[in-house]
Amino acid sequence: VSHHPATDQFVVETEFFVRYVESDGMRVVNHANYISWFEEARSAYARELGAGYDEMERNGFYMAVIEVNAQYHRPARYGDRVRVRCWVEESRSRTVQFRYEVLNAQTKELLTTGTTKHICVNSEGRVTSIPERWQVMLAGRQGELVNIPA
Amino acid sequence: VSHHPATDQFVVETEFFVRYVESDGMRVVNHANYISWFEEARSAYARELGAGYDEMERNGFYMAVIEVNAQYHRPARYGDRVRVRCWVEESRSRTVQFRYEVLNAQTKELLTTGTTKHICVNSEGRVTSIPERWQVMLAGRQGELVNIPA
Amino acid sequence: VSHHPATDQFVVETEFFVRYVESDGMRVVNHANYISWFEEARSAYARELGAGYDEMERNGFYMAVIEVNAQYHRPARYGDRVRVRCWVEESRSRTVQFRYEVLNAQTKELLTTGTTKHICVNSEGRVTSIPERWQVMLAGRQGELVNIPA
Amino acid sequence: VSHHPATDQFVVETEFFVRYVESDGMRVVNHANYISWFEEARSAYARELGAGYDEMERNGFYMAVIEVNAQYHRPARYGDRVRVRCWVEESRSRTVQFRYEVLNAQTKELLTTGTTKHICVNSEGRVTSIPERWQVMLAGRQGELVNIPA
Repeated sequence: VSHHPATDQFVVETEFFVRYVESDGMRVVNHANYISWFEEARSAYARELGAGYDEMERNGFYMAVIEVNAQYHRPARYGDRVRVRCWVEESRSRTVQFRYEVLNAQTKELLTTGTTKHICVNSEGRVTSIPERWQVMLAGRQGELVNIPA
Repeated sequence: VSHHPATDQFVVETEFFVRYVESDGMRVVNHANYISWFEEARSAYARELGAGYDEMERNGFYMAVIEVNAQYHRPARYGDRVRVRCWVEESRSRTVQFRYEVLNAQTKELLTTGTTKHICVNSEGRVTSIPERWQVMLAGRQGELVNIPA
Repeated sequence: VSHHPATDQFVVETEFFVRYVESDGMRVVNHANYISWFEEARSAYARELGAGYDEMERNGFYMAVIEVNAQYHRPARYGDRVRVRCWVEESRSRTVQFRYEVLNAQTKELLTTGTTKHICVNSEGRVTSIPERWQVMLAGRQGELVNIPA
Repeated sequence: VSHHPATDQFVVETEFFVRYVESDGMRVVNHANYISWFEEARSAYARELGAGYDEMERNGFYMAVIEVNAQYHRPARYGDRVRVRCWVEESRSRTVQFRYEVLNAQTKELLTTGTTKHICVNSEGRVTSIPERWQVMLAGRQGELVNIPA
């Protein structure tokens, strides 16, 4: 049941154990937490590009989320180690869309897929172009896969 | 800028203040928390039907989330009181889809919209029909709006 | 089993339903969430004083948490409505300590007790005196109890 | 400013990056999240003992939190990598107390310290003795330190 991401883009993978607090009354990970895992995968992606998102904010630019989609195929449970894959699906001067896959790191089963769409806003909250250094980085890399344990 | 839900379905509204912990480094509510607000709106909806979701689980049925979509129009901030509207968009024997609107309760501005899709699973994790009592409740009511402070 | 707060201070109560996401794999509210409920109770306290904490931050002052204690007596569960009581236990020019009680709003059983201690920091992160207007408000009121649904 | 844990007990360290969602309106990690980090450190501790806490629950035993204490010395921020140290401070047949230290993994500065106290309950919610296999494991190891990236 192994699974390869359906992309030739640069893919960053991050891995971690499910936290106990992330499970809910159904004894599976609550669906909202996958959205936070997507966010953490974006953070790992930015760190891997060599330019942490914290640096972007220090420069006065913020990537605001304007859309989220997620499909839940199989549950993750406390005790599981999960792997989150993240890549850029579409990159423009003012928007960027990421795609995600969450897998069980042991069984390689696909648990959740999703996308997030972002715009760039400045410190006054105005929509603005993504800084060029970031546009280049988001658009530039292809065909590699990097796996980083959290 | 007042806003009316685009439906003739039975709508349940719940209201609460943004919690401090729900804001993030951008000083706005983190996008994942709206997904939890949707969930809380479903809870309010079930309570309003007179059959809390906790009762459903005690009977051995669980409404698992299989899809989430959200569009973020304007940010909510700590200090804001928000109103979450929830109604059934599509109800079948095995699936139900809810739609949501999050508004600023003071200004009535529309902040976030979204949907969630659910299947019914039993205590062994098998997909099953939604219990009839619930199917009837989810399908049955139209044209009313109930506003309940949390 | 009714319970009265052990204080003659001004007490603010806030009430809400347990959110599904707040329960964990034990099917009870995860202990970390009570700390967020304490925080929400402080927010309700400040709103009741007529000076929301958001206003304090807009003026460049932040109440940083330096200590948290909590004792867990009985669990809260999804489906429960809880009441959180909050009052000032000790108020000085540079520190303030709040005390909390979480009750089941139906049965009045005491679920959790705790305290938080805070210092005031300015926008540069320096420890500073609590603004006088707030010192007076925190120290000034006694013997009243206000109950506000969330 | 390096720091060594004040214990000769078996210490388990886990490391991870601060997640964006964990920061709040003060642009530092919200104090409630450290309580979840303590919990994750206990999970790492149990995994390191060779007996994940999920196994304990599958056997019908639950370690319920009855007390939490935390002292906040310096803030963690998004972009920081943190290290959480965890060890058993006191182990009895019916209770166990863990102690924690959260450090900035780069600077080694001590950020937060704390303790949690636990009792063992069975699947009916009754207080019971900690299973012997676990009592032995919790009491048995000394003087080692294991560092595991999350």
